[in-house]
Amino acid sequence: MTIWIRNAWYMAGWASELDGDGLLSRTILGQPLVLYRCEDGQIAVLEDRCCHRAAPLSRGRREGDQLRCMYHGLKFAADGACVEIPGQQTIPPAMRVRSFPAVEQQTLVWVWMGQAALADPAQIPSWPYLTDPSWRNLEGYIHYQADYRLIVDNLLDFSHLAYVHENSIGNASQATEKAQLERIPLGLRVTKLAPNEPPAPHFRKFGGFTGNVDRWNLYDWHVAGNVMLMDGGAEAVGKGGHQGPRETAVQFRHMTALTPETETTTHYFFAQSHNFAIDNPQVTRQVHETVANAFLEDKAMIEAQQRNIARDPTAPMQAISHDAALFHIRQRISAQIESETGAKRAAE
Amino acid sequence: MTIWIRNAWYMAGWASELDGDGLLSRTILGQPLVLYRCEDGQIAVLEDRCCHRAAPLSRGRREGDQLRCMYHGLKFAADGACVEIPGQQTIPPAMRVRSFPAVEQQTLVWVWMGQAALADPAQIPSWPYLTDPSWRNLEGYIHYQADYRLIVDNLLDFSHLAYVHENSIGNASQATEKAQLERIPLGLRVTKLAPNEPPAPHFRKFGGFTGNVDRWNLYDWHVAGNVMLMDGGAEAVGKGGHQGPRETAVQFRHMTALTPETETTTHYFFAQSHNFAIDNPQVTRQVHETVANAFLEDKAMIEAQQRNIARDPTAPMQAISHDAALFHIRQRISAQIESETGAKRAAE
Amino acid sequence: MTIWIRNAWYMAGWASELDGDGLLSRTILGQPLVLYRCEDGQIAVLEDRCCHRAAPLSRGRREGDQLRCMYHGLKFAADGACVEIPGQQTIPPAMRVRSFPAVEQQTLVWVWMGQAALADPAQIPSWPYLTDPSWRNLEGYIHYQADYRLIVDNLLDFSHLAYVHENSIGNASQATEKAQLERIPLGLRVTKLAPNEPPAPHFRKFGGFTGNVDRWNLYDWHVAGNVMLMDGGAEAVGKGGHQGPRETAVQFRHMTALTPETETTTHYFFAQSHNFAIDNPQVTRQVHETVANAFLEDKAMIEAQQRNIARDPTAPMQAISHDAALFHIRQRISAQIESETGAKRAAE
Repeated sequence: MTIWIRNAWYMAGWASELDGDGLLSRTILGQPLVLYRCEDGQIAVLEDRCCHRAAPLSRGRREGDQLRCMYHGLKFAADGACVEIPGQQTIPPAMRVRSFPAVEQQTLVWVWMGQAALADPAQIPSWPYLTDPSWRNLEGYIHYQADYRLIVDNLLDFSHLAYVHENSIGNASQATEKAQLERIPLGLRVTKLAPNEPPAPHFRKFGGFTGNVDRWNLYDWHVAGNVMLMDGGAEAVGKGGHQGPRETAVQFRHMTALTPETETTTHYFFAQSHNFAIDNPQVTRQVHETVANAFLEDKAMIEAQQRNIARDPTAPMQAISHDAALFHIRQRISAQIESETGAKRAAE
Repeated sequence: MTIWIRNAWYMAGWASELDGDGLLSRTILGQPLVLYRCEDGQIAVLEDRCCHRAAPLSRGRREGDQLRCMYHGLKFAADGACVEIPGQQTIPPAMRVRSFPAVEQQTLVWVWMGQAALADPAQIPSWPYLTDPSWRNLEGYIHYQADYRLIVDNLLDFSHLAYVHENSIGNASQATEKAQLERIPLGLRVTKLAPNEPPAPHFRKFGGFTGNVDRWNLYDWHVAGNVMLMDGGAEAVGKGGHQGPRETAVQFRHMTALTPETETTTHYFFAQSHNFAIDNPQVTRQVHETVANAFLEDKAMIEAQQRNIARDPTAPMQAISHDAALFHIRQRISAQIESETGAKRAAE
Repeated sequence: MTIWIRNAWYMAGWASELDGDGLLSRTILGQPLVLYRCEDGQIAVLEDRCCHRAAPLSRGRREGDQLRCMYHGLKFAADGACVEIPGQQTIPPAMRVRSFPAVEQQTLVWVWMGQAALADPAQIPSWPYLTDPSWRNLEGYIHYQADYRLIVDNLLDFSHLAYVHENSIGNASQATEKAQLERIPLGLRVTKLAPNEPPAPHFRKFGGFTGNVDRWNLYDWHVAGNVMLMDGGAEAVGKGGHQGPRETAVQFRHMTALTPETETTTHYFFAQSHNFAIDNPQVTRQVHETVANAFLEDKAMIEAQQRNIARDPTAPMQAISHDAALFHIRQRISAQIESETGAKRAAE
């Protein structure tokens, strides 16, 4: 029984990880992959396992756009076809490794782990703030010892901000305010408005607010690929809140992409973009570290939660009203997995 | 198939571990627990798993006698009832965590892991030497990578003293002398007398004996909770041995309590009390370290034994005559487990 | 389902590991063993598990040719019979540990893990270069995190030399040249001749060749015990190659013995003997380190291969023509295991 949607674009890494001639080894949905950038810029993604004797191709050698296994010397093209077997003239058609569709877009590398025929690059979420010259961000990554769904839960819940993040990005009112949820085809649109509240520490820090603020978090949660794209910010009370004109607002654009590594580990990619003080790299670093540190607070809690669940996976969990968004997304994930598995069964 | 008696008081820790506002996280019989001391001194013991999303409550925050989960903010009373759900008015009755009866007595904290209705504090072993002003001890703890029953075996056998402890607390005669065993309701009364033998190193050290001594180890082994309470000592030959008047004797009162953590790990609590040189903390430390070091000798052997057993759990063990006490207690443990399991089955 | 031939002599260690009174603890075919040398030079090999309570005998004490368990003091003769039980007069016949036939020969210790009645020391491979005064070697050992069969594969394939060892003992031509294979009763005779090629780095280093060389690797692979005995070398072109007179040749005699420790770990013993500069210990060390470093290149690749296989043990492997030798030996191993298992079943 799988816990993963396969027909989805998952973030495989930052494009910068593929600079130069390097080979990047990364496991996604339990599948070890080797990634590299071809001379025309295309990203090649191959199974990180030679079809001959299972040696990892990430220990191999780039020869132009081809990749030679450095155990017995078999050479593979970027599409996975074997193009050379030392000491042998004929190459049987079965002699190939699986390749995976991949796309580089806006500093991100995306890979498609499902049926290649269904891979449509148009479905990849666009996030222009990563390349827009009026915004800045660093490239964030956290390795998680947890089932990706526990992190999905976390990102679909705002009440935890008041507790997990009480000393960083949270404040007390968030425990009780409800988010507005709207089901959209790709997932869930979440609107959480916190009017007229004292600014959280990072808003005080970056906005210099002395009085209360209107705070907003508006985001779309993408079921496929576990991507969150958020418009978040705060503005002094009485200036129109998120509806603008946001003249003295502190604004962020946030992207998180959760890519399952194994059933109990997850790649957590994120970027927190800001449009103020963009020529001050120190501010960019501070903005980044503020959320990175908050995510480490989540990580400590979620990994502890994972250990408790692993100890007794069948113990019941009691729902509360704040769980609405996470339940909805859990159902959408399950339905999608069901449909993929059923379709596969039907095709067999 | 369980290997643990549930209806028993197990030592959960030293009372000193619960000083102040602290939360103590400890796993007992495979169950993660969080312990804290309420304002009236009562010890609260709760399942260390929030009933909402399985976050550990030991990462929570004390609010008076109540404990708030710092993931989503649910708050629990010391009896496990949920008393607050952020953003929600009604609290369903199922919204609670399990609590466990606990008692603090004579510097020790005891917890009852079985049916709460059967928890009778009168059954907790009393050991006045821990608080009696004419005795002194330190608070001992060792974490063991072994099934608790292997440590029970060890404590119910004296022949190993001659081998495992040949250079510390043992001597050669102990290999062949038999202990006298008396079955008593709570377990086994063991009487081991070693008349007229050269003093073991620690008796020489603390008693200054120049000639032979009469040595004794008199103890009750409690099946429930794996508790050993011992009167041990040595006296110069011809002075009446353990029967007194013990005027120049070196005497100890020893307590060991073995609390299973998981099926293959154990909490080993112990105290070696002495009534000589009680105003000299250095002597108290030496007395403590003498036994602590001997226990580390046991630990090395028993953990090696555990690894051998884990490798081939079904390999037979050949009994010898020294095994009488350990077999008896193993049977008592099994019978008690059987009776608990049977009663549970009958009740269902 | 076993993956090991049992009726075979396996190299258990270097004789030097048993110098003095020491006890050597080593696991072979999943069986923990304790080895020691008796006063008459005979090697005793016993199960490293006391038959009483499973304590490891390797934590015991030598008493002449006997071994006392230092948990409860049982004493065993070199044949595994218990000869003393403290506090008990009668010794039941079941009170014994298994012993294993063992032979010391030419600096090596061999142990027989199968039916004792079939143990014939005449089947132990002889390798006089280890003791011949005109040859020198160091005693090599590598601990492998891999199924021994993956290392067998590696040693039966020369094509990998060009890739894994491109910077050490390999060179490019080896990728395409085929070895000559001859099936012999004990396994496989491999002849690999590389006439008229540039000398590999280590031949240049030790032979001072300036022009091309004829290179040879002639070896017998022993299915039982996974032993490789090789005559390898290089001679300047035009001097008769391996057929002699080898007057200016650089020659090695190489022994490798692979002894499975567990299903996924292996003891890798090896010796690279040389007959030049034998009075210069630094040369002996360089010769040794050249192959030892090459073996570490193999180890890195094979352990990575093992991890890939462990992740998905049923994934197919596509054969290439260089695999002939390894397939042949895999079949011989399987046939031998089959025959042992069948014989055992028939006997029951």
